Amino acid sequence: MVVQGKNIIGFSLSAASDEFVTSFDPKDARPMEKFYMATNEEIEETLQKASEAFGVYKHFSGNRRADFLEAIADEILALDNVLVQTAVKESGLPEARIIGERGRTVGQLRLFAQLLREGSWVDATIETAQPDREPLPKPDIRKMLVPVGPVVVFAASNFPLAFSTAGGDTASALAAGNPVIVKAHMSHLGTNELVARAIAEAAKNTGMPDGVFSSLNGRGSSLGQKLVMHPVVKSVGFTGSYTGGMALYKAAAQREEPIPVFAEMGSVNPVILLPGKLKNSAKETAKQYAGSITLGVGQFCTNPGLLLGIAGEDLNTFLEELAKEIRNIAPATMLNEGIWKSYQSGKAKVLEQNGVTLLGAATEQEGNHLGTAAIALVSGEDFLSNPSLHEEVFGPFSLVVRCTDKEQLLEVIQSAKGQLTSTIMAEPDELKGHHDIVEAASKIAGRVLFNGVPTGVEVCHAMQHGGPFPSSTDSRFTSVGTDAIKRFVRPLAIQGFPEEALPDALKNSNPLGIWRKVNGELTRDAING
Amino acid sequence: MVVQGKNIIGFSLSAASDEFVTSFDPKDARPMEKFYMATNEEIEETLQKASEAFGVYKHFSGNRRADFLEAIADEILALDNVLVQTAVKESGLPEARIIGERGRTVGQLRLFAQLLREGSWVDATIETAQPDREPLPKPDIRKMLVPVGPVVVFAASNFPLAFSTAGGDTASALAAGNPVIVKAHMSHLGTNELVARAIAEAAKNTGMPDGVFSSLNGRGSSLGQKLVMHPVVKSVGFTGSYTGGMALYKAAAQREEPIPVFAEMGSVNPVILLPGKLKNSAKETAKQYAGSITLGVGQFCTNPGLLLGIAGEDLNTFLEELAKEIRNIAPATMLNEGIWKSYQSGKAKVLEQNGVTLLGAATEQEGNHLGTAAIALVSGEDFLSNPSLHEEVFGPFSLVVRCTDKEQLLEVIQSAKGQLTSTIMAEPDELKGHHDIVEAASKIAGRVLFNGVPTGVEVCHAMQHGGPFPSSTDSRFTSVGTDAIKRFVRPLAIQGFPEEALPDALKNSNPLGIWRKVNGELTRDAING
Repeated sequence: MVVQGKNIIGFSLSAASDEFVTSFDPKDARPMEKFYMATNEEIEETLQKASEAFGVYKHFSGNRRADFLEAIADEILALDNVLVQTAVKESGLPEARIIGERGRTVGQLRLFAQLLREGSWVDATIETAQPDREPLPKPDIRKMLVPVGPVVVFAASNFPLAFSTAGGDTASALAAGNPVIVKAHMSHLGTNELVARAIAEAAKNTGMPDGVFSSLNGRGSSLGQKLVMHPVVKSVGFTGSYTGGMALYKAAAQREEPIPVFAEMGSVNPVILLPGKLKNSAKETAKQYAGSITLGVGQFCTNPGLLLGIAGEDLNTFLEELAKEIRNIAPATMLNEGIWKSYQSGKAKVLEQNGVTLLGAATEQEGNHLGTAAIALVSGEDFLSNPSLHEEVFGPFSLVVRCTDKEQLLEVIQSAKGQLTSTIMAEPDELKGHHDIVEAASKIAGRVLFNGVPTGVEVCHAMQHGGPFPSSTDSRFTSVGTDAIKRFVRPLAIQGFPEEALPDALKNSNPLGIWRKVNGELTRDAING
Repeated sequence: MVVQGKNIIGFSLSAASDEFVTSFDPKDARPMEKFYMATNEEIEETLQKASEAFGVYKHFSGNRRADFLEAIADEILALDNVLVQTAVKESGLPEARIIGERGRTVGQLRLFAQLLREGSWVDATIETAQPDREPLPKPDIRKMLVPVGPVVVFAASNFPLAFSTAGGDTASALAAGNPVIVKAHMSHLGTNELVARAIAEAAKNTGMPDGVFSSLNGRGSSLGQKLVMHPVVKSVGFTGSYTGGMALYKAAAQREEPIPVFAEMGSVNPVILLPGKLKNSAKETAKQYAGSITLGVGQFCTNPGLLLGIAGEDLNTFLEELAKEIRNIAPATMLNEGIWKSYQSGKAKVLEQNGVTLLGAATEQEGNHLGTAAIALVSGEDFLSNPSLHEEVFGPFSLVVRCTDKEQLLEVIQSAKGQLTSTIMAEPDELKGHHDIVEAASKIAGRVLFNGVPTGVEVCHAMQHGGPFPSSTDSRFTSVGTDAIKRFVRPLAIQGFPEEALPDALKNSNPLGIWRKVNGELTRDAING
């Protein structure tokens, strides 16, 4: 398959504009292909198609939608090396990482397919009638989750596959029964087109309606805003910067009909180093964290940007070892020029703050957009008094906060804004004496880890990727794992309908064999009519 | 118990202000008691108490919280006739209605207690570790719902008990593990104080922390806004007007940390009369609807304000019968002066619109704030071209839209904004031929009824009370039924924690015996460690 630079509008390729955006190779610092920007007419056509497709697609059974998702996975794998090399070129990420990410993307699609085939995710809840109840008869009421309507997905810079065109947002929105419109990310326009065409192909081959999926090229500030403001659109998925996420969130709240924007905006993911852990394994922990801080050139939402410990010999040992490890990390190409520039300026800004000292940095090398790892140190007092030290520096940089004692450590944790993750590095028997620390770490985060690294977000039923604001706009939902589907549905109750008019999930006979809550009890049994 | 006119701040009564609001008897049109408004210092004290109480209360077991809710129910019943008479006086509602509503309020509290004792509502989801998985080991991740923090509840005018001080919002927020601060409604300040003191008493007697519940007096535009903007507050429950709900929603979105406002803002609840139904039972249906339209002087969120049918003899029969029934309805006192004035002006405004004719109205009577029932008629064409006819007239008034044919009927349904309910009155065999009607009715509503009346919202697991905007601000949640608890929680994942540090709901041994999703399968079994 050859990249054509076009918009994918349902089953059609479209190129009506005379304006272009251009893909870019961050490693060689050179522009590559031209991509047609979506015109207003194309945007309108896309949304009309999505609206019509919704009327059809939402009635498709779980099995039919699962066929579609699995076909997308197959089509993505069929793109083979073309996709891998395009993504490598556009993102600067190594081939092994892209192949791993493709595996994750395909795995996500198949996991949602599995969820659909099993079927219980619709939360079917049934209360049967009690016509003889006093003082008033009880009606028959049945409730299940139904799709909300067309969803706009903003592809993310840092996961050209797994959080982009066919990533978790798209997979969960399609699984829920909604058409999806992807706004291609400027950092991987070619990758986007290849995957979008794979999705369109899968849709055609599995009998999905034209318009169940589209992908448009353009700038966030124009195309992105237009999509979010359009009345056909009912929900938005976004992974990216705080500025970008909040611009969409605020725009959506100003609509005549406000809609939710699920923006995952990253965080500093504090890591709390308790004394016992440092005493027993300062060096091993330093090695483990040097790896996590610099993984993928630090370009993960769950990158540990803040390490908190109590002053003492063991912390010094940890810091020495961490600095040593960091110095040996080879610089690598960052995702795009904007991210690289922000990293340079963000790191420089932290390093010039009062009381901040550089602990260790990797050696600079010749090359384009290289992210060079670094670790800095600051006292608890200086950290607490300086809000600019609480901001995320996206890239392979972490700030260590050296606290005077446990009380200051607690204060530092409590001062943190909402986080995707927090981590407690401790000996198991230390947890008992640190209830307040565990409590504080839980209050600020969506996921709390014990003796692990926050990078490497497992795609599973139990994952929570979304924490208190500002790490995400809505901590009640996750953007990773099967529960991500809950963002794009609403409960619909139907009352007094005859059996033959009920959807399968709510029929007495339970033809889908799913788990349901019937008169308060979970069961897979049929109801005796 | 005697009303003292004070604010209830945790376990204390407080009266620091020299400003007052006054309760009012709408039937006799006379002011009654004075109530101290909350000062800024009292607001601050309330929220600090709530914040501290949260740290304690959130760790209480389901059984302890259930004890508290049940004790509230008992204390409310112990108020006996004092409460009933106070509510009757302040609301103008008949005694039987208030007694019924008290039963509903107590029933809600006990239903949430039952949910807590059973325990599965926390959605425990567990994925056990696979240390040998290739290419990467799978970590142990466990997730459950945890409370978000202090919740502000705005008491509703139209349910002085069931949607107010100890109503569904308060019951579900407390059940979830959050402290609650109620802003008393101006229409029933005395009722509020009695119930608030009952809650405080129950809290004391069951060992709850001081501050788990408070209730303050003041105006929505000052006290209400201050509460919603305070950083300690994490969520808001509201039932009332579109204007009031949206003012809070927009304020909350402008906070440094935006928080959700669950505003249930009412709707016109369209009723679709299909031809077969009218042919077979025009008169019975008219009788049924005359009752629903005028129940509680039409002051229900689910009051059917819009009746849609196709022109013809059967519709005429229905209209004649409906008009006859409406003429015989005795006017009754409305909840307060503001609601009565809005009803008068809203009804008058509709009646002066182009093409609108009065079908029938009850006879006016002498008395204060009496709501007189009325029914008007308009053509489908005039309805479609006049947005002001789509607005809710809160009270015993309904507009009948006479459509030329099925296509226009469908168009009218599709033109409706988001609704709490929609209703299809049809013969069972008519549904097959009207898929598009059922589809349109489902798309706009949170609950769709077949051959029923939307008034009378059943409190149960399957209820959905909350529909697409503007009937509520978030159609993904309900404010009635056990699922109302989901508004005030967020999922928290914990990764790699040792068994002894896990909360009971997530321990391998499953000491609570709850339903959990373990590696994708629902089970109540323990996990073999």
